[in-house]
Amino acid sequence: MDTAVDLSSLRESLEANGADGYLIDDDASDSDQRYVSGFTAPDPYQTLVTPEGVHLLVSGLEYGRASTESSADSVTRRADYDYQQLVAEHGPYEAKSRLLEAFLDDHDVDSLAVPRNFPTGTADGLRARGLEVTVEPEGIVEGIRATKSDWELAQIEATQDANEAAMATAEELIATADIADDGTLVRDGAALTSERVKEEIEITLLRHGCGLDDTIVACGADGADPHNRGSGPLAADELIVIDIFPRDKETGYFADMTRTFARGDPGEEARRRYDVTKEAYEAALEAVEAGVTGADVHGVACDVIEDAGYETLRSDPSTDTGFIHSTGHGVGLDIHEQPSVSPSGGELEPGHVISIEPGIYDPEVGGVRIEDLVVVTEDGYENLTDYRVGLEPKNE
Amino acid sequence: MDTAVDLSSLRESLEANGADGYLIDDDASDSDQRYVSGFTAPDPYQTLVTPEGVHLLVSGLEYGRASTESSADSVTRRADYDYQQLVAEHGPYEAKSRLLEAFLDDHDVDSLAVPRNFPTGTADGLRARGLEVTVEPEGIVEGIRATKSDWELAQIEATQDANEAAMATAEELIATADIADDGTLVRDGAALTSERVKEEIEITLLRHGCGLDDTIVACGADGADPHNRGSGPLAADELIVIDIFPRDKETGYFADMTRTFARGDPGEEARRRYDVTKEAYEAALEAVEAGVTGADVHGVACDVIEDAGYETLRSDPSTDTGFIHSTGHGVGLDIHEQPSVSPSGGELEPGHVISIEPGIYDPEVGGVRIEDLVVVTEDGYENLTDYRVGLEPKNE
Repeated sequence: MDTAVDLSSLRESLEANGADGYLIDDDASDSDQRYVSGFTAPDPYQTLVTPEGVHLLVSGLEYGRASTESSADSVTRRADYDYQQLVAEHGPYEAKSRLLEAFLDDHDVDSLAVPRNFPTGTADGLRARGLEVTVEPEGIVEGIRATKSDWELAQIEATQDANEAAMATAEELIATADIADDGTLVRDGAALTSERVKEEIEITLLRHGCGLDDTIVACGADGADPHNRGSGPLAADELIVIDIFPRDKETGYFADMTRTFARGDPGEEARRRYDVTKEAYEAALEAVEAGVTGADVHGVACDVIEDAGYETLRSDPSTDTGFIHSTGHGVGLDIHEQPSVSPSGGELEPGHVISIEPGIYDPEVGGVRIEDLVVVTEDGYENLTDYRVGLEPKNE
Repeated sequence: MDTAVDLSSLRESLEANGADGYLIDDDASDSDQRYVSGFTAPDPYQTLVTPEGVHLLVSGLEYGRASTESSADSVTRRADYDYQQLVAEHGPYEAKSRLLEAFLDDHDVDSLAVPRNFPTGTADGLRARGLEVTVEPEGIVEGIRATKSDWELAQIEATQDANEAAMATAEELIATADIADDGTLVRDGAALTSERVKEEIEITLLRHGCGLDDTIVACGADGADPHNRGSGPLAADELIVIDIFPRDKETGYFADMTRTFARGDPGEEARRRYDVTKEAYEAALEAVEAGVTGADVHGVACDVIEDAGYETLRSDPSTDTGFIHSTGHGVGLDIHEQPSVSPSGGELEPGHVISIEPGIYDPEVGGVRIEDLVVVTEDGYENLTDYRVGLEPKNE
């Protein structure tokens, strides 16, 4: 399914550092491994990059699928190294070291580079067996992944299309709800809760081939905690933050979008915060182009928010209110990946896919966040998000 | 939400090995961390176990939620160690080592035990700063997690209830489909595909508060590859394997169940394989009790299948057909966890939750698998699964 990936910068690093190969030892949750191997499996497997190719080591259960579906140049079964026998003789911990030692030996690898998140148990086990294991500190594979191919952009856009459909479902539910005497939103005779809206969002995503672990539908003070997913009845005259970050079940590519709505009147201060957030979002978008840094773009968003009189983590690193997160992050096979649009964010390059998502938070007022997903181009960006920005929810 | 967990065996191991603390450095996908901290977050955080308590290190974004929701004895923000400044001065890789060094120093920790999957980058970074880092090779936390509390059993049972509702949805779709002239199953004028059945399974699960990444609805040769999730039209006279392993979105606890159905007549050999698989499943269940090993239970299933003339990985470690996986695995916060019901499976203890899921596979015939989820008791097991075993799909 994947087009072949360009690992030349990884191979150059191996050569420069005198390493014979680069080993990943993880499961499907490791997007680097998925990207390099073109394969995903529920159980752990290993991916070895050498000058000659990409080599997988898998269980017998995965062998057939890995052979046909992965982009690897070779696939080997654990059983080829008598793995069960090794486990019986040495226990699972040492058996794994011996298994990998044999696999690496078959590919003439004595010295290894490994990613930062490589298991220490595996690294120390291989070191005890005489192999040299050095951490590759730069995250070269993450760096390669940051620049998306046209095929990857199409996958992310498809996920964002599903996301837009889900956001429309949520917006319509809020726009068309009745308002009870106590101010809570009501539909079909029952409170319209965060949970109900999330369920309908997720069903819409499923109908579009996407899944997700979490959705945020957070009202009032809940919305002032950017990672609070929200619960309980939604209410009129309150800010409602909706942040949806689905993943396509087949391709594994994420999308990400946030809108903030309010039925009725959330009050002058809330409306002001919405306008300032929108201004920060627009200014940050305007700043995006190849060659500027993620730190620059984040700085632009901070400027707008600080100028309006709100705290940011730049003006006060320990603030609990105001703009208390980064302006954005890369999105791809991980929901948070390179590049970073934060104080530590490096230079943006064409093909980087990033979120732009400033926000202003305070439990007294609620939360506001507006987020689009864009791809960096030579002279600006292309917006992968096609969804109206407006505080008042509409049923369109 | 979690009841407090008993980490005494971990603390005893620390003391026996002269370690001042045990550190987990991961994100929400690490169930050990979720279990020990009573907390989950989308971004990485650190959990330190010392003789005095459990201590979290989190981003400012997570601080509020970690303080109120986690079961930790203390929660510290990265900003308290000037993390952004460290990143600016030293880059993200060394900044993390310095951050953790300061955090560990605050808790009087000079020598650390870490889990096998602890990031090598973090381990080597701390070692370079003079800390002693040793891998805890036994997986003590996984071992603690294997024995479920009554609260955990109730969560797993609730997830299995949702699973049963989803399986009933799938079975009904297959039972009531029309059969087209070419043998494919048809509903509402369109082919009943794996994809359609999976979508309805997942929507049922969502309505019950559960999500899942993958569902298997695999017909014919697809079902002979145990990890093939299945695709395309389902057909009469073929074996259809349905394996559902949902996770409750709130509690994080999984359940797991498999049934195999066939509309019409899948043929004598397929029916014989179904009967042999059912016999292996019943024999393996019968063998479950505290004090026997997972290896014993696996052996019982292999005996039945080999006696019927089919290969197993015991009779031929490199076979592609026959019984080509383990009899079962622990289920809890991970879908695959301790204990193992395989050749390497150790002693079963009361409170262990395991799947029992023998199967027989051959692309020529298709796949059969039958799976229940049970909790081990002193003198046998209690079945957490309440779902009929039968090849013919029914609409009940």
